Amino acid sequence: MGTGEVRFIGTVVEVNEDISVIEIDQRFCPGLDQLDSYSELDVLFWFHFRDDDKHRKVLKVVPRRHGETEPRGVFSTHSPSRPNPIGLTRVELVSLDGCRVTVKGLDAFEGSPIVDLKAVSKRRPGSS
Amino acid sequence: MGTGEVRFIGTVVEVNEDISVIEIDQRFCPGLDQLDSYSELDVLFWFHFRDDDKHRKVLKVVPRRHGETEPRGVFSTHSPSRPNPIGLTRVELVSLDGCRVTVKGLDAFEGSPIVDLKAVSKRRPGSS
Repeated sequence: MGTGEVRFIGTVVEVNEDISVIEIDQRFCPGLDQLDSYSELDVLFWFHFRDDDKHRKVLKVVPRRHGETEPRGVFSTHSPSRPNPIGLTRVELVSLDGCRVTVKGLDAFEGSPIVDLKAVSKRRPGSS
Repeated sequence: MGTGEVRFIGTVVEVNEDISVIEIDQRFCPGLDQLDSYSELDVLFWFHFRDDDKHRKVLKVVPRRHGETEPRGVFSTHSPSRPNPIGLTRVELVSLDGCRVTVKGLDAFEGSPIVDLKAVSKRRPGSS
């Protein structure tokens, strides 16, 4: 099995309850053009606190947050400890202001590196 | 902006129309435990044909497949040419057989490296 290089495109710069602000690096900012015609996007981010061999070796977890007591495979969970420390959250796009993307529902931390953004659902015409 | 290392966990080994078979490397196979209690999963894969500087520099695309004629930012599209050549598709889990995961609706190629699998929706009790 090979490897690939992920180049971070931005960072989560603010988290206030369920609202997060992502700042995209100037270099990648043109890629945001027309993102605000979408209401939902998938955010791929890096679990930088789990990017080490110990956490990347985890293949089974007990999802206690979900009230479970038995281990199961990481691929059936969103555990941050997994072979590739990539987080994925579908969020609501609140606003786009230059290189800053404000979203609702992102479960990343302040400082989390951003790997990719992928628009999901078009805004309905007439909605803001 | 930093970088991260992605370690491929498997490969798309068969594609027949909308059905694809993913083979997960033996090493990571225990991570599949109980995946089959889910009916939907997100598949993260690597656009290995686009993993070069030329394609990773693409920030605007014309989504001709969608009948568009004007360029827009890659983050508002699922274009395989983008800063990080990661594909993301939400698929239906057809079956799990050892290290082989059969899914419906994956738009990757035979030979595409797999980065991660993340279960989405629980199977309804009683469904197969």
